[in-house]
Amino acid sequence: MFIHDDFLLESTTASKLYHEFAKEQPIIDYHSHLSPKDIAENRQFDNIGAAWLEGEHYKWRAMRAAGVQEKYITGNADNKEKFLQWAETVPKTLRNPLFHWTHLELKRYFDIDDYLNKDSAETIYQATSELLKNNPNFSTNGLLKTMKVKIVCTTDDPIDSLQYHKINNLNNHDIKIYPTWRPDQAIYIEKGEAFVDYIYRLGKSADIKINTFDDLKEALLKRMDHFEEHGCVISDHGFKSLPLGKINERLADNVLKRALNGNTLSDADFADYQSTLMDFLGKEYAQRNWVMQLHLGVIRNNSKRQFLALGADTGFDSISDASQADGIAQLFSTLDENDELPKTIVYNLNPADNYMIATMVGNFQDGSISGKIQMGSRWWFLDQKEGMEMQMNSLSNLGLLSQFVGMLTDSRSFFILP
Amino acid sequence: MFIHDDFLLESTTASKLYHEFAKEQPIIDYHSHLSPKDIAENRQFDNIGAAWLEGEHYKWRAMRAAGVQEKYITGNADNKEKFLQWAETVPKTLRNPLFHWTHLELKRYFDIDDYLNKDSAETIYQATSELLKNNPNFSTNGLLKTMKVKIVCTTDDPIDSLQYHKINNLNNHDIKIYPTWRPDQAIYIEKGEAFVDYIYRLGKSADIKINTFDDLKEALLKRMDHFEEHGCVISDHGFKSLPLGKINERLADNVLKRALNGNTLSDADFADYQSTLMDFLGKEYAQRNWVMQLHLGVIRNNSKRQFLALGADTGFDSISDASQADGIAQLFSTLDENDELPKTIVYNLNPADNYMIATMVGNFQDGSISGKIQMGSRWWFLDQKEGMEMQMNSLSNLGLLSQFVGMLTDSRSFFILP
Amino acid sequence: MFIHDDFLLESTTASKLYHEFAKEQPIIDYHSHLSPKDIAENRQFDNIGAAWLEGEHYKWRAMRAAGVQEKYITGNADNKEKFLQWAETVPKTLRNPLFHWTHLELKRYFDIDDYLNKDSAETIYQATSELLKNNPNFSTNGLLKTMKVKIVCTTDDPIDSLQYHKINNLNNHDIKIYPTWRPDQAIYIEKGEAFVDYIYRLGKSADIKINTFDDLKEALLKRMDHFEEHGCVISDHGFKSLPLGKINERLADNVLKRALNGNTLSDADFADYQSTLMDFLGKEYAQRNWVMQLHLGVIRNNSKRQFLALGADTGFDSISDASQADGIAQLFSTLDENDELPKTIVYNLNPADNYMIATMVGNFQDGSISGKIQMGSRWWFLDQKEGMEMQMNSLSNLGLLSQFVGMLTDSRSFFILP
Repeated sequence: MFIHDDFLLESTTASKLYHEFAKEQPIIDYHSHLSPKDIAENRQFDNIGAAWLEGEHYKWRAMRAAGVQEKYITGNADNKEKFLQWAETVPKTLRNPLFHWTHLELKRYFDIDDYLNKDSAETIYQATSELLKNNPNFSTNGLLKTMKVKIVCTTDDPIDSLQYHKINNLNNHDIKIYPTWRPDQAIYIEKGEAFVDYIYRLGKSADIKINTFDDLKEALLKRMDHFEEHGCVISDHGFKSLPLGKINERLADNVLKRALNGNTLSDADFADYQSTLMDFLGKEYAQRNWVMQLHLGVIRNNSKRQFLALGADTGFDSISDASQADGIAQLFSTLDENDELPKTIVYNLNPADNYMIATMVGNFQDGSISGKIQMGSRWWFLDQKEGMEMQMNSLSNLGLLSQFVGMLTDSRSFFILP
Repeated sequence: MFIHDDFLLESTTASKLYHEFAKEQPIIDYHSHLSPKDIAENRQFDNIGAAWLEGEHYKWRAMRAAGVQEKYITGNADNKEKFLQWAETVPKTLRNPLFHWTHLELKRYFDIDDYLNKDSAETIYQATSELLKNNPNFSTNGLLKTMKVKIVCTTDDPIDSLQYHKINNLNNHDIKIYPTWRPDQAIYIEKGEAFVDYIYRLGKSADIKINTFDDLKEALLKRMDHFEEHGCVISDHGFKSLPLGKINERLADNVLKRALNGNTLSDADFADYQSTLMDFLGKEYAQRNWVMQLHLGVIRNNSKRQFLALGADTGFDSISDASQADGIAQLFSTLDENDELPKTIVYNLNPADNYMIATMVGNFQDGSISGKIQMGSRWWFLDQKEGMEMQMNSLSNLGLLSQFVGMLTDSRSFFILP
Repeated sequence: MFIHDDFLLESTTASKLYHEFAKEQPIIDYHSHLSPKDIAENRQFDNIGAAWLEGEHYKWRAMRAAGVQEKYITGNADNKEKFLQWAETVPKTLRNPLFHWTHLELKRYFDIDDYLNKDSAETIYQATSELLKNNPNFSTNGLLKTMKVKIVCTTDDPIDSLQYHKINNLNNHDIKIYPTWRPDQAIYIEKGEAFVDYIYRLGKSADIKINTFDDLKEALLKRMDHFEEHGCVISDHGFKSLPLGKINERLADNVLKRALNGNTLSDADFADYQSTLMDFLGKEYAQRNWVMQLHLGVIRNNSKRQFLALGADTGFDSISDASQADGIAQLFSTLDENDELPKTIVYNLNPADNYMIATMVGNFQDGSISGKIQMGSRWWFLDQKEGMEMQMNSLSNLGLLSQFVGMLTDSRSFFILP
């Protein structure tokens, strides 16, 4: 049997620690990409194709590498056809975590011991879809409860109404969902028209016409209040690398105005705007006692063809090798100078940065609270055995693993595994 | 016995997979630096010194680090003296792959179990040289046949006549040799006079006077036709990192003209020329269904003193830590935009880039063919157990090892080991 | 028992090699940060708090990460209070080398098998402090003799009088101490006023008024003579990365003059000055047959708040991810061009650079002496099991471990462990 009770637990100590201590712990999933709508509505999936393949760009990448046509990935084939293509791909994923996840999910949720492949696909499709469609234990909330999930933090745009968070928590569901403040679109000024359009919509959501940097700050503050009312205590940011511009509101104001006028801006302009805005936000997080999460080192939408055809978050993102150290040092030192650095978690996507990050976070520990600055758990492409071991070794050797805030799911899927 | 049947096969599964499946497979060596002349002429080496030490800059580096004088490396000492110096160096290479290769070659080709060192050197020199000089099984082709080599792809300059490929294949030798198109010298415009001289010779080989970028393209196309007639289906390029210039033929034309006039050019000029030329070549490879190989991350000829004394490829090259991601993304996305990205293999020389590369190649898989974009096998300094394991782990965790195009030799030596 | 005779010796070969060969070897500690004053005066510590926590910024970082207030780290709490806070921190350092070092030191020096924690702290404090204060075997020199230390090289500024080296060696102590020439402050021209002030003091120490680059060279040469009279044969430098400026004394002279006049300088100015000065120093080291040590890849004093409050070397330094290759290649190739590259050791702080460094040092081996250019042993944050294994694997796979100059302590503590 591939997935047994001691899967990956290769010593008696590991087995004991898992079964006697870890296994029964509830899950406080402080960072995920789950849909608040699905949770609030307690969605019941029609079939395993929908449950496993909708938006699941990890699987999409594997299918493309295996030579599966786009029709069966994001195209107009139906869910069953897509699932069958996925089933044929699975044996080709040996040594990739998708192979382990797939069989862990089959075993832990559906008690299926078979390998998923072309031969077993039909049977597995029927058995799983039957449960997903009709059994309430297999609704979104059923799946989460199976894994003892108590709290889910979603990832949300400042202009989000948070209506589903409100409905869910008002209805006193067993699972609480809290929003995470992720203002990337207000920061990505290099996106040109898309940025200008976003600033307009942000202004509308805050009922403020944004013409200046002061207007922008006011709008963001209003939306932060809104998020806070819905239980938000965490922010999140994604960067290729942190900007190394000047922190200067007059400059930022000038850059913003030119951006809103459709003028062409330089890389230095982008950096000045972004550095100033991050400084403002960081101070505000510290003020509100929010956590600042930084996801560093991703290059998004590398294939222009696919981005134009399929949009963002469709499986065309990769690890960056941009330098990270100086940007972190600048932002953190500036905030720290007047003790305005919030509790912070740095997630790096390139494992080549592990040792640097583990020491950099240590530079801003100040004894005010244990583990104030965290080296985050492994993320995205690193979310596999080697990636997790590298992070734990780096953190152990250069910092204190004992003060680690612990794992999260970062999941887009309701099959959350402890 | 150091080299036994299960050398490096540390589990019964490994042993079974090797002995029952891999061992008898023929070798299709799709990338090497073997001499087509030696193969066509079925060279018989005079002695083990010639066979092992001619052009073998891996060994030369080790000898220099061990304090051996240049006289015994590239100098005028005779082959036997050089071999004796190498023999004294071997015990000092413990934990370096040279130690394993040396004893694997002694065992697999010569059935010698002794360690090579000062004491055994004379005996081993005599025994091996006797076979190399007189036994047809130890000619270049004999050595290749011992290892079941069927096809060898060499690495060739566009101006190469390919006469030895022609002679060899016309003579219906058991081993086919095909050329690989490696137009580095047409790309390295930063080399100044050497570049101008090369462009002149390229023009002569194509019977075209090259004054413009259009002329250059025409000359390259003619030479690609010539290569194709000799069975070429693979191109190859070497870069410190891919250029990040503008893709614009008018600019490239201007830069080329100034280069040919001996004008001083800027780094931006170099990049514009190179980016435009790579874009042109990539599209042409796609058109011809050639594979594009990219060897990224080397800094060549680091010691100016040694370069002036000994020339290129003499053991003074090293791994670069230049950023690789953006250059790959730009070239690939531009080619991919109109579906003109050829089948591609990316070989990185700095293992710190493994994870980035493994994700970057995944961005351009499009389902049109399985494993269209490959993370190449380990190369040069990485061609040892740790390096190979790192590559296989990166590829496994972030892509599909099952779609891997597999190992090559990259060899300069006729002792090719499976 | 956590620390036993075969601690970390996981095979019978390892145990045999350590106990039969390594264990009785004397220690020639060719790079440390020990206090020459403490050695010359054979200091007896008042208590374990003073012995373990004075200047020990490795421990300070851990304490801050564990939430200990600065008062108990660098503040005005007494040594016993600080030690008690450290004792409470120790269990939280599990998997960090501090955990191993702490218990190795308790066992090897004090024969204490207990774990250090809150409960054992008082007993351990009394037992160890009693020995440290009153037992001559626990004086600084007693501690060093326990570990068979024969020679200690300290790290010293060019303006240092070296009086303690002189006193110590005149008194014919069993332990010789030799200075290491570390002229960082003459190189860090980017420090502005602090640099100008240093140049003034350097001039005073050499009895030369420094107005020009020639004056600077003359002053440095005089101080090098002084160091040489006290047995100095090693230099040392610390860099984020080596400068990539022009090597040109006229330019350097101009930059120096402007710096001394308090003018604002550009990054290019800094690089020109530093490249020229390093070229001068490298040639001088070669002339004197001194070793050139280069410690590369650190970003110091990342937290401006803490730097202003506590000064340098207080635990706010980290690993850099700056590019290292080109700077090394430029300096080494320029020196090597006329065979003026001294024996050199390169220590990199970012393990992501290991493979690049291991190949780069190989580019400058020239057979003149075995192991002329060294990849240095693991350093600072890398001085733990994973870091040491990575260095040994890199060096083994890409160079010759057999020619390795071997381990040093880099210690600030008199508890030097073999």
